[in-house]
Amino acid sequence: MAGKNKYADLTPIMQPKSVAVIGASDKPGKVGTAILQNYLDVGFQGEIYPVNIAGYDKIMGLKAYRSILDVKRPVDLAVIAVPAEVSVKVLAECGKAKAKGVVVVTSGFAEVGNVKLQEQLAATARRYSLPVIGPNCLGVMDTRSRNDTLFLPTSKIARPKVGGVSFVSQSGSVGSSTLDLISDAGFGLSKFISYGNAAVVDEVDILNYLAHDDDTKVIVFYIEGARRGRELIEVAKKATRLKPVIIIKGGVTPMGAGAAHSHTASLAGSGEAYKSVFRQFGFITAETLEDLTYFAKIFDTQQLVTGKRIAILTNGGGHGVIATDALYNAGLQMASLSKETERTLRKGMPPIVNIRLPLDIGGDADSARFSAALDALSHDSNIDAILSIVLFQTPGADESVADSIINLASKKLKPLVVMSAGSEYTQSHVRLMEEAGIPVYDSPDVAARALKALIDYSRYKKGIL
Amino acid sequence: MAGKNKYADLTPIMQPKSVAVIGASDKPGKVGTAILQNYLDVGFQGEIYPVNIAGYDKIMGLKAYRSILDVKRPVDLAVIAVPAEVSVKVLAECGKAKAKGVVVVTSGFAEVGNVKLQEQLAATARRYSLPVIGPNCLGVMDTRSRNDTLFLPTSKIARPKVGGVSFVSQSGSVGSSTLDLISDAGFGLSKFISYGNAAVVDEVDILNYLAHDDDTKVIVFYIEGARRGRELIEVAKKATRLKPVIIIKGGVTPMGAGAAHSHTASLAGSGEAYKSVFRQFGFITAETLEDLTYFAKIFDTQQLVTGKRIAILTNGGGHGVIATDALYNAGLQMASLSKETERTLRKGMPPIVNIRLPLDIGGDADSARFSAALDALSHDSNIDAILSIVLFQTPGADESVADSIINLASKKLKPLVVMSAGSEYTQSHVRLMEEAGIPVYDSPDVAARALKALIDYSRYKKGIL
Repeated sequence: MAGKNKYADLTPIMQPKSVAVIGASDKPGKVGTAILQNYLDVGFQGEIYPVNIAGYDKIMGLKAYRSILDVKRPVDLAVIAVPAEVSVKVLAECGKAKAKGVVVVTSGFAEVGNVKLQEQLAATARRYSLPVIGPNCLGVMDTRSRNDTLFLPTSKIARPKVGGVSFVSQSGSVGSSTLDLISDAGFGLSKFISYGNAAVVDEVDILNYLAHDDDTKVIVFYIEGARRGRELIEVAKKATRLKPVIIIKGGVTPMGAGAAHSHTASLAGSGEAYKSVFRQFGFITAETLEDLTYFAKIFDTQQLVTGKRIAILTNGGGHGVIATDALYNAGLQMASLSKETERTLRKGMPPIVNIRLPLDIGGDADSARFSAALDALSHDSNIDAILSIVLFQTPGADESVADSIINLASKKLKPLVVMSAGSEYTQSHVRLMEEAGIPVYDSPDVAARALKALIDYSRYKKGIL
Repeated sequence: MAGKNKYADLTPIMQPKSVAVIGASDKPGKVGTAILQNYLDVGFQGEIYPVNIAGYDKIMGLKAYRSILDVKRPVDLAVIAVPAEVSVKVLAECGKAKAKGVVVVTSGFAEVGNVKLQEQLAATARRYSLPVIGPNCLGVMDTRSRNDTLFLPTSKIARPKVGGVSFVSQSGSVGSSTLDLISDAGFGLSKFISYGNAAVVDEVDILNYLAHDDDTKVIVFYIEGARRGRELIEVAKKATRLKPVIIIKGGVTPMGAGAAHSHTASLAGSGEAYKSVFRQFGFITAETLEDLTYFAKIFDTQQLVTGKRIAILTNGGGHGVIATDALYNAGLQMASLSKETERTLRKGMPPIVNIRLPLDIGGDADSARFSAALDALSHDSNIDAILSIVLFQTPGADESVADSIINLASKKLKPLVVMSAGSEYTQSHVRLMEEAGIPVYDSPDVAARALKALIDYSRYKKGIL
């Protein structure tokens, strides 16, 4: 954003001690009603000031104000949910009231051709040096402080647990559906930011803020375009040294670029050029929306590793074959067992187990066999990371197999990912492993791509290209 | 199989009126116990004859026999679950008892180096002209007759509902996990065949049988190699004219081919060569295990279509962009609206909706707007198929939107697929749509690939290349 500082400080927006909800109401169906209700529902711990020009005494049991200027107490964050045509005036009042940050959820600006109104909004923000997220956005969420400006109820969008992944989306639909998916994705969230039209605060400010945010271990980004290309690169260079930044750009194909231009008026620019810049500055590029969350999971839980030699362990031969194809397609290598590991495995496995990678320990493998095999592979310096396939449909696979994998993974000897696919019985064990911090994928191909992303970023960070 | 007929008749194996379970027992943990228990649990309607050499009077309340020769009544299917070393003798007894088909689940044959024993088994089958599935397999399942030789309980592998997809797997692990996934995949199953070592009945027999099976609308195949290449092509040419055959071959990469050889001793042969042959004879090739089920869903429910002009309808702009990229990547085209459709939409949509494809009808779109838009697109002859993106996280999307899509889809005007991603609230609506025969995908990329598969096969069948 333009202003005194090069990049906006989003702390008052993300972790406010006090929030004014402007446009708050009791009336069902109003955005301001949904936002205030949500603040009460999610258990926000700071002060909440409902503001409505109609001059109610109380709204939802809280003392109400006609204007933020009437609050007369410090307001960190103002959430503006009033009609577009009065939003500029209301924003100016936020400036006068010395609010430290603003989220404008209201739509009806540049996205419907009201470019001038949006310029007035931005000029007002600049006049008061106010960091403003939006307009035309879902706003923000911080799982630790339970700051949550979303006007969509938890019945429609599940709220993820507290964690280290922060997710940023230019698109509201990608933001809301991905946020909803994250609640099932096997990792926790630190922050969510839907920044809409980016009239003031943009992707550069957000990336800079999250890069220096101690609660954020992994940054996940959906963008369609960036207006400040030079600054984005400047910030990206620093951010990707500090933590993994997983990114997907909508509109990377010629057909998609046309759609993106129509959607957010994002600058065209070839998708391939973007991708090449992304790679150069250490972004982790996802090719699909699903990979955003699949990749987040491995970076959230596993240590970095620069070697590409993967050991596949499986209790199903067919999956071993498919996973080997997947490793090859992802550009990874199958490791070779050291002589010592071969000896250990020969002693520890039944004679019918063929001591080579992929290591197929048989459809009757139980937790003892999984433990022995994983332990041997984890101590082999010829192996950089392990992909363990566990098919819980087999007779020997039960909760004790999940436990033995969790036990081995807790030693953090090497990056470990698990592939398991199936319905209820399988899913109950998948949840156990994911809660213990193991990334579990239902596809050998996804598991291989996630490992590749981990290794690529590790090599970038270590300067190995 | 060798024998009097060129291809084995699997009807007595798949839909037997009577079954002998040889090796049946009361003892927990035995394979024969699990199979008999399962026959009782799933409600098989035919006669069940437990056979055990120990000479029990009754097993699980059923009259038991020392040998199949003692049954003295017609036996369509004999399921052999006795130790490998006595299986040849038992198979000969099945031949003498004039059983019409046999499944040998027992392992300990060629897969562990016992090639000779497997040859004896095959020779015995030939002597009695007995179709034999296995050895070393899970066996078969037919949802209509509730014939189910699986020795894995329904608590580990959910059993899919009755439907038109038949799934065949050379690998037990791919078979069991995919079967388990199909119970959640939004379509029903006709038959499941895990054929293991293929000592007698092989993929050629099975493909021929399913091609002519009226209950099978779509065939899904996992193979690692084929021994009768010429016959496979001969049968494939006919089968793919009759119905879609979706196939994935394990071991298509140089690394994976090595693993496949070690797994099922399948002939090497380059993966690319296989794929090219597959394409030439009209197989629908899946690149991942997941695509097997994703593709099955669209073929099970949607009419064939040779045109590539797709209309994207969405209530989320970002997903419209991503889906447009996905169409392009899949080699499909974005349709252009006819003048008439443009006029209809301009009348039926609010002014902020941009009348172009992808058609973004807004985050506030309700069922009326979805209905009007879908109806207009469905009647436009410039459009070959529709991809409708429904994000149930948005304020306007609720059960009535699912209902309006179901209503439109029931008219079968054009192929229609839906993309919806999210947690519980979304999933409840996804289930409604899938139960109504609409293929729903949680990824724009998968939806685009599924449409591409549908179009490719349609063009093959119509001779458009």
